[in-house]
Amino acid sequence: MELIHYMRYALTLAKKGKGTTSPNPMVGAVVVKNRRIVGKGYHKRKGKPHAEYIAIEDAGSLARGATLFVTLEPCVHFGATSPCVDTIIKAGIKKVFVATIDPNPIVNGKGVKKLLDAGVDVEVGLCEKKAIELNEIYNKFITTGEPFVILKVATTLDGRIATETHESKWITDEVGRRYVHELRSWVDAVLVGINTISTDDPLLTTRLAKGKNPKRIVLDSDFRIPANARVLGDGCIIATASSQEREINAEVWRLSNDKTGRVDIKALLKEAGKRSITSILVEGGRDVYTSFLRNKLVDKFYIFIGTKIFGENGIPFVGNLGIQSLKNAINMEYTRVKRIGRNVLITGYPCF
Amino acid sequence: MELIHYMRYALTLAKKGKGTTSPNPMVGAVVVKNRRIVGKGYHKRKGKPHAEYIAIEDAGSLARGATLFVTLEPCVHFGATSPCVDTIIKAGIKKVFVATIDPNPIVNGKGVKKLLDAGVDVEVGLCEKKAIELNEIYNKFITTGEPFVILKVATTLDGRIATETHESKWITDEVGRRYVHELRSWVDAVLVGINTISTDDPLLTTRLAKGKNPKRIVLDSDFRIPANARVLGDGCIIATASSQEREINAEVWRLSNDKTGRVDIKALLKEAGKRSITSILVEGGRDVYTSFLRNKLVDKFYIFIGTKIFGENGIPFVGNLGIQSLKNAINMEYTRVKRIGRNVLITGYPCF
Repeated sequence: MELIHYMRYALTLAKKGKGTTSPNPMVGAVVVKNRRIVGKGYHKRKGKPHAEYIAIEDAGSLARGATLFVTLEPCVHFGATSPCVDTIIKAGIKKVFVATIDPNPIVNGKGVKKLLDAGVDVEVGLCEKKAIELNEIYNKFITTGEPFVILKVATTLDGRIATETHESKWITDEVGRRYVHELRSWVDAVLVGINTISTDDPLLTTRLAKGKNPKRIVLDSDFRIPANARVLGDGCIIATASSQEREINAEVWRLSNDKTGRVDIKALLKEAGKRSITSILVEGGRDVYTSFLRNKLVDKFYIFIGTKIFGENGIPFVGNLGIQSLKNAINMEYTRVKRIGRNVLITGYPCF
Repeated sequence: MELIHYMRYALTLAKKGKGTTSPNPMVGAVVVKNRRIVGKGYHKRKGKPHAEYIAIEDAGSLARGATLFVTLEPCVHFGATSPCVDTIIKAGIKKVFVATIDPNPIVNGKGVKKLLDAGVDVEVGLCEKKAIELNEIYNKFITTGEPFVILKVATTLDGRIATETHESKWITDEVGRRYVHELRSWVDAVLVGINTISTDDPLLTTRLAKGKNPKRIVLDSDFRIPANARVLGDGCIIATASSQEREINAEVWRLSNDKTGRVDIKALLKEAGKRSITSILVEGGRDVYTSFLRNKLVDKFYIFIGTKIFGENGIPFVGNLGIQSLKNAINMEYTRVKRIGRNVLITGYPCF
């Protein structure tokens, strides 16, 4: 096997932690001796051992003189286990391939330095791009303290998210919906506006896919959510600018308001970050999408296109963004395209 | 090689006639003897020999006792050459694989029958689906006398074809535009509304790709095209409901009008069919797209999605279609998705 294959395998292992490692990154590691994989591991969830520790344990005495492939720089701080660099040094690992440096300020190069100082050979950069992309949520959160914001929308071919009578069930097919539920299981929280609650009364849970339920944030500036809304209950958060007191089955976040009197979504993201919410999936509707886009607060798009046409009386995906000329349009970079059932999924990053 | 590979090769040959065989179908043929291809041919353009004739000529004396693979049922009528069935019988071909029957009423099964009557073994249906799709334009034209209508549009991710200031250059990138020029070279005519002429003053020719220029039809109900519009000249057609006489460098079609006083597009398609225009690429704008969709006159979509967002003040792709509930939405069937440069191309067939 070429070096790259070992690292690719470590990346595959890392991905097994998708949706469960938050606020920690996903990490995978393999121990290789005489070209054979003799140990492997990945980080499962916060509080559980790190990937390097598991892989080295798995290798046992074979770790001595072996090469370690790890998708993220080994840590230098104490967590559930002692620092990974110490484990690596103690095990007698000879060489470490690190896909990418940990952007976490308390690590950020210190792991590599400590290994080198101990006489371990280190090489950084194998599959670096993939390793960075893998932890795009963690990378933003750990460097800014704010969640990574994903805008997910299901539109028609002509950019509509509902008919004029607000019918939106279903623009995409069952396979597309299952994928959305999977997406939910990967993030810490989903977010919708109060209008979506009034119109669709969604549960916002992970039902069509395996995986955990995310927290459910309702952007409800005037605190007018009906007491019987299905979204309420454990894990539900009402983000409001109102000081009104109500007995409601949810956590309530009182936030400052913006010029229009609505919840300041920048304050909302700060609050979410403080509470270790590393990622938010914004699920609509139009006004919420528009606010996030106007404020340039979207980090990634998941645009599902159902192969239908509604015509201009349907509800558009985005409201007025104040874009007059083409050069001011929001551009998507690093676009990916995928068939999901009978739908088309376009993912990418906005370039504001 | 398996049988299917010979037929696939014949299909590949047939495609070389794309854009030049109209109003004839694209046809490819290969002659196989002792598992080796000994002759091949395809129909290049109207007035030129048919694929079977060329393939058999190419095989020479080896055709005797050989097997012929042809993508469309051989003809029984006199054209540029004598009927292909006669050529096949005379050459001593032993067996013929026909991908699909010719829907042309003057052939439609008669070719196969004549071959069987002459003692030639015939098998129909190898790669049939692909062979039918290959000639979807011809198939519609030959059975209805009307052109196959392709709706081509370049939209943003939110379904906009221009900003509110009517800027639309460019929603897609250079690679996308080159593909559109290629599309133009494949059809007999392109069509736009008079508003597109006023706003963009397009040439509508094939410049960024190799290939012929299509005819250019302008839907201009009131005959108000400016005398210096760049679309005018050889190959330009003005379709109008006005009886006004004007000295203009274009062919003028006087057509009946619909209830709203505008050119009746059903009459337009009939007229185009009479003049052997087998395919029309409808290039916009919004009102023209809306008319064609409202009248259910679209046979195929080419939807190019540029990875940009304009917001709802941009010009929507389609106007009001009178669709209120989701079950009345226009659905696209047999969707295909492709990356074209940085754009996404969705093709499919509407299911009205």
